[in-house]
Amino acid sequence: MKTKIEQLDKVISSKWQEILSRPQVMNFTSSLMGEDQRAFALYMTQVYHYAYHNARNQALVAVNLANKDVQYMKFCLKHALEETGHELMALHDLRSIGVPINDPEKDMPPVLTATELLIAYLYWVSSHGNPVQRLGYSYWSEKSYDYIKDYVKLFSKNMGLKKTQLTFYFNHSNIDERHAKEVEDIIKKVFKTEDDWKQGAKVAITTLELTSQIFFSVIGEYEKLAKGLPSEFEILNCLNNNK
Amino acid sequence: MKTKIEQLDKVISSKWQEILSRPQVMNFTSSLMGEDQRAFALYMTQVYHYAYHNARNQALVAVNLANKDVQYMKFCLKHALEETGHELMALHDLRSIGVPINDPEKDMPPVLTATELLIAYLYWVSSHGNPVQRLGYSYWSEKSYDYIKDYVKLFSKNMGLKKTQLTFYFNHSNIDERHAKEVEDIIKKVFKTEDDWKQGAKVAITTLELTSQIFFSVIGEYEKLAKGLPSEFEILNCLNNNK
Amino acid sequence: MKTKIEQLDKVISSKWQEILSRPQVMNFTSSLMGEDQRAFALYMTQVYHYAYHNARNQALVAVNLANKDVQYMKFCLKHALEETGHELMALHDLRSIGVPINDPEKDMPPVLTATELLIAYLYWVSSHGNPVQRLGYSYWSEKSYDYIKDYVKLFSKNMGLKKTQLTFYFNHSNIDERHAKEVEDIIKKVFKTEDDWKQGAKVAITTLELTSQIFFSVIGEYEKLAKGLPSEFEILNCLNNNK
Amino acid sequence: MKTKIEQLDKVISSKWQEILSRPQVMNFTSSLMGEDQRAFALYMTQVYHYAYHNARNQALVAVNLANKDVQYMKFCLKHALEETGHELMALHDLRSIGVPINDPEKDMPPVLTATELLIAYLYWVSSHGNPVQRLGYSYWSEKSYDYIKDYVKLFSKNMGLKKTQLTFYFNHSNIDERHAKEVEDIIKKVFKTEDDWKQGAKVAITTLELTSQIFFSVIGEYEKLAKGLPSEFEILNCLNNNK
Repeated sequence: MKTKIEQLDKVISSKWQEILSRPQVMNFTSSLMGEDQRAFALYMTQVYHYAYHNARNQALVAVNLANKDVQYMKFCLKHALEETGHELMALHDLRSIGVPINDPEKDMPPVLTATELLIAYLYWVSSHGNPVQRLGYSYWSEKSYDYIKDYVKLFSKNMGLKKTQLTFYFNHSNIDERHAKEVEDIIKKVFKTEDDWKQGAKVAITTLELTSQIFFSVIGEYEKLAKGLPSEFEILNCLNNNK
Repeated sequence: MKTKIEQLDKVISSKWQEILSRPQVMNFTSSLMGEDQRAFALYMTQVYHYAYHNARNQALVAVNLANKDVQYMKFCLKHALEETGHELMALHDLRSIGVPINDPEKDMPPVLTATELLIAYLYWVSSHGNPVQRLGYSYWSEKSYDYIKDYVKLFSKNMGLKKTQLTFYFNHSNIDERHAKEVEDIIKKVFKTEDDWKQGAKVAITTLELTSQIFFSVIGEYEKLAKGLPSEFEILNCLNNNK
Repeated sequence: MKTKIEQLDKVISSKWQEILSRPQVMNFTSSLMGEDQRAFALYMTQVYHYAYHNARNQALVAVNLANKDVQYMKFCLKHALEETGHELMALHDLRSIGVPINDPEKDMPPVLTATELLIAYLYWVSSHGNPVQRLGYSYWSEKSYDYIKDYVKLFSKNMGLKKTQLTFYFNHSNIDERHAKEVEDIIKKVFKTEDDWKQGAKVAITTLELTSQIFFSVIGEYEKLAKGLPSEFEILNCLNNNK
Repeated sequence: MKTKIEQLDKVISSKWQEILSRPQVMNFTSSLMGEDQRAFALYMTQVYHYAYHNARNQALVAVNLANKDVQYMKFCLKHALEETGHELMALHDLRSIGVPINDPEKDMPPVLTATELLIAYLYWVSSHGNPVQRLGYSYWSEKSYDYIKDYVKLFSKNMGLKKTQLTFYFNHSNIDERHAKEVEDIIKKVFKTEDDWKQGAKVAITTLELTSQIFFSVIGEYEKLAKGLPSEFEILNCLNNNK
């Protein structure tokens, strides 16, 4: 019989399979856009936006008076601390490939609706409902490298990206090995009721879906750029090798 | 000419002198209540209440989107992390002298209005106005030992309190030496404008006054107990040696 | 040349057409589920959940200190006032067709993820970003009757629903005629910059999409019920005429 | 035997007597400052500040998910609606006696600490703890005219203020007669437990004390102005007839 944590792994794994089997993923991988740094840069602008909020909504779980578990409060603050300022890695990566973002408050392209939905949802689950549920998000995201590393390898090769231009990815894949263990440990301690596991799984699946929607929205925006349509991301056209 | 930080020290020092010269302080010190553990226990119940919120409102400064300084966000989260659960020291101290608090949610005597004002004000300054202003509170509170240590020594002797019954005090006096240095460092970095120094000083003076009001309210409540009047703190009468 | 408000109408109208042309709509309309009161009841449980929050997040726009326009604050409070308690109409409609919900806190089936995303997003746009943007939601929702009335007529006939069992719908269609005018008036007053119109349109489109997702999620849940699969909505099986 | 509401009246009445018997009240009334429009104007600047927040924190009680009473939610929104923009009356009164406040965001003198404490406390009690407790504030404040009208009459005569320069006062004394009745009605409906009455009384007494502290702080600031000391309220010196 499966343990609760194995059941959670299974649910997340199935969701990943379902997402990775969508035709857009194949299309992206095998097409020219998979070689165009603009697609990568577009995604990084959105990473900048959600990373800006992740440490904050993670800390909000500790502020939330419904969270009365001292050990879990400490987990939330420690992880918030470690993720503070990670948007600066996304900014670094954008700059390092040549995107001329001087002041991010002025020059950073806007947040896409898909990204804003992830942000809004994370603040909501951090301040309302079961206070342990946000761990569902931490759980899959700290363990996502197994699912995405082959893709990242492929894209970075195709796009000609060096490791020093992928600091957001590589720093997280390092940190997150330890984090994944810590998240698993705290889940085993604070998930006590059926509702804890249920809400945790719900948040995992929902945020994984929302994150995939960011990727698919980025593809949509990329296609506008590629066709030369008006776009709020035109600053990225400096990366277009075929221009 | 005084530096800005020396001016802040001066303002705080004057406020301390003014508080310590109030007649209630002398009365308390030289009277029987200075020998009655109930007075100490009453104060500890209020320490429990504000300590319960301090880590949370400290973390709230990092959540606050007006706070855009990554280094300051990290300071806030680190200090919130280190202060999480400190209400449990106050609870330990109450239990160790014999106050029968089994479940603090049910058995802990209520928050006094003076204490609630400090709590309400700290949440307010952590989420509104100048985001660096809460440092004024951290600054004086981490440096308060010079002002109170002689009093604590006197009371603990008069009340027959052992060091193991004063964990809240002794743990903080240890931690806070390092904290005081860190607070001074971050103040020097993030207080840039005249308004930063002004709002920081305002929060320092206001929270020092509010904290002194907790002490004076505790004296008022103690007097009710001592006279045998009805009180929400009667659970502390088990400490009365003269009963 | 189109006025700004006509442009907004156009954007919303196109979005409606796109939603109504999705195959699920046709499938639903022409299938047995379009005759099964459980499909209607399932939707009403979700109306209950989002209506519970709508007045609150509408009022939140007035609380938001970024909203400095007294007239707009009054609009927000007036509309929040008029929408307070509207979840009770959804509850009434559920009870009137025979769903045995005694205490909604215990008996009401849970919020679906699609519904929670709408709720989370509305709190987010009410408390962050451009304070006028939530008007995009009010604008399309108060004017939605032209798009949905034929469908409601069809379903209510097919499902055998009386007007007294559709109080949420009929009360709103009455109130909303006046509301629609008020929303248009306030939009014309407070939308001043390009950003106001852009953010308002973004919130309109996003919330219309999220609302349609509630409908599509309801269909998915209905199919589980219809197949006799385990479901958190089994309380609605009392409505099944074919059982 | 006294009813609960009579007991609340008694508690409030005693607090008023105690405040009005403080020596500062007599000193103010019988001294030159009681004839100096600067003292009135100083108070009005603080009325501006707290009135700016009152409608907002009143509305926050309806947003608060701990408030589940539809009738009480409606009361909160209706009263918030009626109090929205009342800071503009204080602004009008300041301008009408000649204080050159063009843009209040720039020209309005700052909030005093006493005023900020009232504001912070009202947000706190509106969003935490027993959701009905804020009614204690509404209850005494809507009924305050019996206590202060003789003073207002005296000061307005001594200071040479016309009725059209006291719009904040006269508009409220008109509105508040009806409001006082509505507050009493809702209290009788929603105060059900001992804790409701206790927390309501606590908030009444605390906010009455905090409001009196605004008055006493204003006197302190006035004295600085009168002595020609540096002050953040020097804009009011244009009202000094003895200059």
